[in-house]
Amino acid sequence: MINELIQKIEKKDAPIVVGLDPMMNYVPEHIQKKAFEEFGETLEGAAEAIYVYNKGIIDATYDLIPAVKPQIAMYEQFGIPGLMAYQKTCAYAKEKGLVIIGDVKRGDIGSTSAAYAVGHLGKVTVGGKQYAPFDEDFATVNPYLGTDGIQPFIDVCNENNKGIFVLVKTSNPSSGEFQDQLVDGKPLYELVAKKVVEWGEKCMGDVYSNIGSVVGATYPEMGKVLRKLMPKTYILVPGYGAQGGKAEDLVHYFNADGLGAIVNSSRGIIAAYKQEKYAGFGSENYADASRQAVIDMIADINGARAKA
Amino acid sequence: MINELIQKIEKKDAPIVVGLDPMMNYVPEHIQKKAFEEFGETLEGAAEAIYVYNKGIIDATYDLIPAVKPQIAMYEQFGIPGLMAYQKTCAYAKEKGLVIIGDVKRGDIGSTSAAYAVGHLGKVTVGGKQYAPFDEDFATVNPYLGTDGIQPFIDVCNENNKGIFVLVKTSNPSSGEFQDQLVDGKPLYELVAKKVVEWGEKCMGDVYSNIGSVVGATYPEMGKVLRKLMPKTYILVPGYGAQGGKAEDLVHYFNADGLGAIVNSSRGIIAAYKQEKYAGFGSENYADASRQAVIDMIADINGARAKA
Repeated sequence: MINELIQKIEKKDAPIVVGLDPMMNYVPEHIQKKAFEEFGETLEGAAEAIYVYNKGIIDATYDLIPAVKPQIAMYEQFGIPGLMAYQKTCAYAKEKGLVIIGDVKRGDIGSTSAAYAVGHLGKVTVGGKQYAPFDEDFATVNPYLGTDGIQPFIDVCNENNKGIFVLVKTSNPSSGEFQDQLVDGKPLYELVAKKVVEWGEKCMGDVYSNIGSVVGATYPEMGKVLRKLMPKTYILVPGYGAQGGKAEDLVHYFNADGLGAIVNSSRGIIAAYKQEKYAGFGSENYADASRQAVIDMIADINGARAKA
Repeated sequence: MINELIQKIEKKDAPIVVGLDPMMNYVPEHIQKKAFEEFGETLEGAAEAIYVYNKGIIDATYDLIPAVKPQIAMYEQFGIPGLMAYQKTCAYAKEKGLVIIGDVKRGDIGSTSAAYAVGHLGKVTVGGKQYAPFDEDFATVNPYLGTDGIQPFIDVCNENNKGIFVLVKTSNPSSGEFQDQLVDGKPLYELVAKKVVEWGEKCMGDVYSNIGSVVGATYPEMGKVLRKLMPKTYILVPGYGAQGGKAEDLVHYFNADGLGAIVNSSRGIIAAYKQEKYAGFGSENYADASRQAVIDMIADINGARAKA
């Protein structure tokens, strides 16, 4: 699956992914109103509102971008109807030719991790039949439980041509509490990175591995080191824009081949119409604002890379 | 919520929890057959089979136990219908007076962790209304992202009288890859334990905190140390039985007050009828086998504690 992702990144010259993390207060009034009129102020109404909102953004941006990254928590909070909106969002984005990175941050052990892997990336067997319940292309995975938690994902990725991104160094302020602790003189995240490389060798694409990593844009010096430690590992980079990561900080997340990183923006794209810069679009035209924000983000990142 | 859990543990003299982790090959033939006849070999059929199976086990054991711990991965693998079965299982067990420990191992940052917390333990707002989508009493949480990932859960627990169990030292063979690494001469899991104590102070019950921990039965020496490091922290103990943890190893997971630990068994209870010891029950009477296995487990654990 990493091959397909790279192909789309190259074709569109856009090493970015749009994070579909719909907070209800991002969803324009007119969409909420219509959904609530039809379904009431219910979980179904909320789910309809976020799906319609997502669809508008996908329609306005799919020709520019290789992938979307829906954050499942934002759907799961609305229970079963929310999770149905997650599934519909994934299916719709896939229909539009996008790679789906399910930001699910799952992780458990043995048969339990296998169940997550099968549910999100593989096929589950029921009697004599098989189903692909969520069918994302990639999933994010938490490494705290070690190889026991990752191996089942590797197996499912190999069987189904899918991939994962393992959390290495996350973008949040307190990520250092555990991740930066020194182990034999090196931060824990470097040890995780080494394991990611090992796991990655068991699940290679043509040049890069199907086992990627997550390294936050907010720690550019660490990103530079991690890029070198994991030469064949794709880096999914959260934290650009709203969280403070800048394009010039991200040039070192890429390899000399121009590949190796895909930068996520969520709020900065999907709620662009709420920023002063894009306010002229108005909430009715929120999706056009998102399109412009995508164009600006690609120019920002590719511009910084050209200068570097 | 820890107060309620303790009350039920004391009333039933049973510091145990039954893990509802239904693998399809645990579900007796007659239940599968009936579900598939009604719904076909579909995700709905699988979901019906595991719900009926769970219901049988709950009906046969609820008077003996304080809590159940459904493992959401086993439901999530069957997509939306599977998650509906998870929700129905939680609701049914709650109806029977049981405390629900959702083994969801979620964990993210900021507003994303808040969304998980709200979806599983709190109430989500839709327009002028509020809903409790999954409404477990406790959830398991992964600590890799630090305080940013935990604080939103603490807030929701305080608002809704709920609790969490944070992964400290997991029961699986490779848990040491990261968790045992020495940081300033002490294993990482001890550092996580110290943070759990800190977090716990912000969310106290009467004697114990609503912020508990997970420490595997398979590492009894570490459990002994962790018990002392976290005096007011309840320990949820996976790994008893099928994974190799023995009752005599677990006596040190309890405090002198006789409290402080709750031991989980999943396969050993729910698939008891598949063991030679309980084979006499037959698959038709699988729930009676589970009841006997619960009785035996309580006797085993309380017996070891009485001897210690």
